[in-house]
Amino acid sequence: MGIDPGLAATGWGVIETGAPPRHLASGVIRTSPAEDHIARLDYIYRQTAAVAEEWKPQAACVERVFSNANGKTSIALAEARGVAIAALCGRGVRITEISALQIKKSITGLGRADKKQVAQIIPMLLSETPKLRADAADALACALALTPLSQLHGSRLPPFRTGRRRTRR
Amino acid sequence: MGIDPGLAATGWGVIETGAPPRHLASGVIRTSPAEDHIARLDYIYRQTAAVAEEWKPQAACVERVFSNANGKTSIALAEARGVAIAALCGRGVRITEISALQIKKSITGLGRADKKQVAQIIPMLLSETPKLRADAADALACALALTPLSQLHGSRLPPFRTGRRRTRR
Repeated sequence: MGIDPGLAATGWGVIETGAPPRHLASGVIRTSPAEDHIARLDYIYRQTAAVAEEWKPQAACVERVFSNANGKTSIALAEARGVAIAALCGRGVRITEISALQIKKSITGLGRADKKQVAQIIPMLLSETPKLRADAADALACALALTPLSQLHGSRLPPFRTGRRRTRR
Repeated sequence: MGIDPGLAATGWGVIETGAPPRHLASGVIRTSPAEDHIARLDYIYRQTAAVAEEWKPQAACVERVFSNANGKTSIALAEARGVAIAALCGRGVRITEISALQIKKSITGLGRADKKQVAQIIPMLLSETPKLRADAADALACALALTPLSQLHGSRLPPFRTGRRRTRR
């Protein structure tokens, strides 16, 4: 399972490992700024717990939070991350933290791939993937980051192009 | 119940309302920087849940987090806050958020009281208070902030002095 936490939108995705790995379920937990702050965190906690209860993941991967220019946004994100982690810990799910850079590296083989490239690659790496919302795609990228690279890229992925060409002599 | 969240030390305190309110239990949940980050959050979650399970508080008060100069510290604090909130929400405890300023105001009647003054006042406001660690005192201050001011200051508190004197004519 992968989680892409956020106060307004927490993406989640459950995969089954294999070659290729299979999409089992994914979605986005949404809360509105009109709601009470604690009620929003409570909702994220309950929904994450419900997903863990339904899908019983063996392991989960959560993207690490770094502070950015907007301190208030970082704090809301970290709180959402906290309640999501608690929901999984409370159900005995083993959690791994991973940086955005590591996710990109394991998905595309390159650290410098952009968000759009990651989103494009997800359906190529996973069988039975429906049309995905951005936050769900990010969560699946997170889940896939737990899968060995060889298993991933032994699947249906075309060679990844960096946009640079080598000059042959 | 009051919670003063932190990654290294999360203070907690349980009081019984009344005039004066009574200290029931308090303590500090400590984690070490040598431990894995997720393991620390998991521990805070489990310990907070255990306190809620044992004391079954009707309501809880958690201090609001503001971003400070150190973004990394704020994020760790917000994550700790998130797991503590999840532990309480998961046990049906109604949570109120409160700012540090509001806590000081309700405890001392003044917004400009310093941390030391707050800590000195706690044992005067609560009956049966043992010797407290700083984080537990902060958590109790948080719990007391839910108590009506009249109930608090109708108790054993001497008139609060601001250090300024009025000149009588």
